[in-house]
Amino acid sequence: MKLSKLVGVRFKEKPADCVIDSHTFSLRGGYVKRVSNGIFSLYNPMKRVTQNIEKILREEMDGVDCQEVMFPVVLPGSLWEESGRYQSVGEELLRFKDRNDTPMVLGMTHEEAAVHLARDYGKTYANYPFSIFQIQTKYRDEARPRAGLIRVREFTMKDAYSFHTSQEDLEQYYDRMANAYDRIFERAGLPDVISVKSDSGMIGGSVSHEYMLLADAGEDSIVLCDECGYSANMEAADTTVDNSGCSAAAELQKVHTPGCKTIEDVCKFLKSRVEESCKAVIYQVNATDEYIVVFLRGDYEVNETKLTNYLHEAVHPGEVTQDSGLVAGFCGPYDQKAKCRIIYDKSLEGIENLCCGANEVDYHYTGLNIKRDIGDVEYVDVSKIQDGGICPCCGKKTIRISRGIEAGNIFQLGTKYTESMGMTYIDEEGNTKTPIMGCYGIGVGRLAACIMEACHDEKGPIWPITVAPWQVHVCCMRQDNAECKAAADEIYAELQKLGIDVIYDDRDVRAGVMFADADLLGVPVRVTVGPKALAEGQIELSTRDKSVQLKVNKEDIITETKKLVDDLYAQINSKVKDRI
Amino acid sequence: MKLSKLVGVRFKEKPADCVIDSHTFSLRGGYVKRVSNGIFSLYNPMKRVTQNIEKILREEMDGVDCQEVMFPVVLPGSLWEESGRYQSVGEELLRFKDRNDTPMVLGMTHEEAAVHLARDYGKTYANYPFSIFQIQTKYRDEARPRAGLIRVREFTMKDAYSFHTSQEDLEQYYDRMANAYDRIFERAGLPDVISVKSDSGMIGGSVSHEYMLLADAGEDSIVLCDECGYSANMEAADTTVDNSGCSAAAELQKVHTPGCKTIEDVCKFLKSRVEESCKAVIYQVNATDEYIVVFLRGDYEVNETKLTNYLHEAVHPGEVTQDSGLVAGFCGPYDQKAKCRIIYDKSLEGIENLCCGANEVDYHYTGLNIKRDIGDVEYVDVSKIQDGGICPCCGKKTIRISRGIEAGNIFQLGTKYTESMGMTYIDEEGNTKTPIMGCYGIGVGRLAACIMEACHDEKGPIWPITVAPWQVHVCCMRQDNAECKAAADEIYAELQKLGIDVIYDDRDVRAGVMFADADLLGVPVRVTVGPKALAEGQIELSTRDKSVQLKVNKEDIITETKKLVDDLYAQINSKVKDRI
Repeated sequence: MKLSKLVGVRFKEKPADCVIDSHTFSLRGGYVKRVSNGIFSLYNPMKRVTQNIEKILREEMDGVDCQEVMFPVVLPGSLWEESGRYQSVGEELLRFKDRNDTPMVLGMTHEEAAVHLARDYGKTYANYPFSIFQIQTKYRDEARPRAGLIRVREFTMKDAYSFHTSQEDLEQYYDRMANAYDRIFERAGLPDVISVKSDSGMIGGSVSHEYMLLADAGEDSIVLCDECGYSANMEAADTTVDNSGCSAAAELQKVHTPGCKTIEDVCKFLKSRVEESCKAVIYQVNATDEYIVVFLRGDYEVNETKLTNYLHEAVHPGEVTQDSGLVAGFCGPYDQKAKCRIIYDKSLEGIENLCCGANEVDYHYTGLNIKRDIGDVEYVDVSKIQDGGICPCCGKKTIRISRGIEAGNIFQLGTKYTESMGMTYIDEEGNTKTPIMGCYGIGVGRLAACIMEACHDEKGPIWPITVAPWQVHVCCMRQDNAECKAAADEIYAELQKLGIDVIYDDRDVRAGVMFADADLLGVPVRVTVGPKALAEGQIELSTRDKSVQLKVNKEDIITETKKLVDDLYAQINSKVKDRI
Repeated sequence: MKLSKLVGVRFKEKPADCVIDSHTFSLRGGYVKRVSNGIFSLYNPMKRVTQNIEKILREEMDGVDCQEVMFPVVLPGSLWEESGRYQSVGEELLRFKDRNDTPMVLGMTHEEAAVHLARDYGKTYANYPFSIFQIQTKYRDEARPRAGLIRVREFTMKDAYSFHTSQEDLEQYYDRMANAYDRIFERAGLPDVISVKSDSGMIGGSVSHEYMLLADAGEDSIVLCDECGYSANMEAADTTVDNSGCSAAAELQKVHTPGCKTIEDVCKFLKSRVEESCKAVIYQVNATDEYIVVFLRGDYEVNETKLTNYLHEAVHPGEVTQDSGLVAGFCGPYDQKAKCRIIYDKSLEGIENLCCGANEVDYHYTGLNIKRDIGDVEYVDVSKIQDGGICPCCGKKTIRISRGIEAGNIFQLGTKYTESMGMTYIDEEGNTKTPIMGCYGIGVGRLAACIMEACHDEKGPIWPITVAPWQVHVCCMRQDNAECKAAADEIYAELQKLGIDVIYDDRDVRAGVMFADADLLGVPVRVTVGPKALAEGQIELSTRDKSVQLKVNKEDIITETKKLVDDLYAQINSKVKDRI
């Protein structure tokens, strides 16, 4: 393609609302245009990138015998009623009515549609296992879309669904899919994406993993142990707290703590350790407004996803009213008379001498021993794991918390959808059974943004050649110089003949503009045809990342360019794991 | 792919609600599954067909310098407010509100999105002309989805938009696009699609053409002249009526016509010619309920699209109330006292002796001469052209009306969208101008259904090789015969090595089932490995349409199969017009 014909606008200024680099370059490089909050049109360069990603996705899905199908974007609400998600999913599921007043939804994930499609075929054991995928538009009515293509409302996703007759078979396939995911990220030029154990959330199921690109700009926290290699997201990481060094039991005493509303105030006032304090965090169940009081060690925080998963109910921060019986700022487990459900976090287990609220304004207890003063309680893990905390895998204090962007996920779903939607098969002995499912997603646009985030310099993206919008960028520095133009025209034509995707800057613009645009388009290989070097029979061949900067004899430029393109492919492919 | 692994169910019985063959075979062959009214999931074979169609579309768009982009499915209502279509389009535009109560729509066509994307780039004349397209999901809230993939609510469409600085430039590009469309249909194995002049309807603009597949099952009527080659859709075909043989003027007389409520009754009762009668058809304007009375020759019908286009207002059949002043069944133009707007259709022009209603129950006039008795009136063409009628092009009575399915359309839009949405450019002289647009659509799923409709026998589709889900279907007639299986396995492997898409029926099923499935999958080339022929060193090579049925020596089967595949491609490509 000639750059003079490329629809889109590139510009220099960083847009005000861009907080991450991939968002900035998406706009500055003429890759996307915002249509609405979290909704974008793609210009041709981004369309090319996503198509290259989709090609990799298709090849890798084919590699795990997963066949392409297509589900609708608009689904009848009745299908989501079958699985129960029409009710259980929040506002991010866009519900509307068609002209006949039939409830419809915009698909944000397609488990229901997959079961609907496979239900007939899956009636006999002989057809198992099988696996289907689609690459299609999804819509999720995000409350706060942000960060360009990272968190949007409308997105293109590769979503795959597998069906099995045994947990072992699902696990085996899950491993194959995990391998395919590793290959996908490696092929897309992101070898450093890591797989972390995750919470299954709204999708359901037991075992699941997220594929995380480590990035400071990421919105997710990832729990890592450099010692044993453990990794998980915050929701899935068990918090282990070592309370072995705590002081001995003491007498329970009510003390006056005027104006001490936070646990830090109290510990400072009483000169006691925050590690031996018990704080209260109050929630309410969304459906019933029932109060939930979580007691945990003063220096820990509640992880709301862990709490929600434990309760099997959605909650919101509690609003403490007069007649609730709760005393805000002084809420404690001893002599608690309010009507509420109490949860003890594991971080309190083993502490025998706690400071806590006395359920009376300006009073706290010291010396609380839960076992002695309250009795046997159940301790539940609902707190956030901390940086420097104990690894739940190797037990060392080696936990490191990093930021990351979720680039994909895989789930062992179990029978959540097949059972609720009545999908069954007849096994070899003639018994009716319920198949087991897995599901596997990768957002195409988000992956493109992840690549931009991982591969860029201050001037723009540095696309890995496997996904780059074009492989070679030819710059003709002087359109008005006949020799220069003829050489560039010929290189453009010859490289295309070799099947290479070429963008040709044929514009009559200053060198500064030309190079700035080339940097924003981020094409990995650049051929620069300038009059001075050409007069000496030479043409410049370089890579976007500056690792290669050569003067090549004019007659060798096609061969050398082709060789460089092949080398860049080989570099990426050498890192790709074998298929299992 | 192995047929034993193909997700989907094929069956023998014709589903009750299928009125056209493509719908029947779509379901019977395991191509689609209905999810809701007019909403389908696609199984792998249909996904393959649509992908092959999309490949042709991409290549042909590339051939007319049209670059691929992507617009959102979900668009803000505000964008459609800009063009005025948020109000003007009917219920087929699905409107809803997001969680923040912002009005949104599901894109049913993307003129607004195209202007939005191109508005910045198109600010200078130097960037013109340019053209962009996408292949994407659209949703149209059809009142009556029907005929399988022919008229659906959700569909994938290739829609292109071009931008120009002059009408001449648009026309030149329009011709190139028309040529690309011819090539698309030819390449997809539908050389008999014809282009007809059409009414632009909701899209707007002046000149437009529809690409029609002639098919008895089609829901559109097409006006054809075999004499001069004229073609148009009903809305666009001017009705010419020859009233030269009418009788001479006579005296205006009121006559008693007891119980004669239809024009046929009256003519029978009065023994007069229906060709010299004037009937009334009553409408009301949707917005105001104003009455519109159309008078036309008794044997003609009103074309409501022509009427709407003339009025620039939507209308519905009138409900004649007591106080309307209209006398249902006896409504005529002479002495009409009701408050209504009267329209005289061209079919009445030149008749000097008309029979018509007298606006009084059980009375008609005879001898009405509009010019003499009413005065000079404007005659407007709002009637349907008739089979055997006069060709508006060559003037002969050669009009033939056929049925067809619209497979694509192209529009010269003018400035309808660019003007309303404030898209401008600075021309060479520094003046601000409004660009001119064209738009060009092809529904991918509908095209697949059209191909099925045009290319099938009683057993299933006969896919043209260019779009077929697979190119070769290998049938192993006896999986339990080691020699047979080994030969089939090898053929499957060898053909794939040559880059041929192969479906391999490796199932242990009866020959009848195997052949019925093969016919439903409609793969153009079939290789049948049976034990008897194989014992004689022979393998059967045939085409789905039975034009080729050969026994080939085992050692030649790969070469011969490859040759047959190439021949089938060549047959189609030989019919494809050159690019202009």
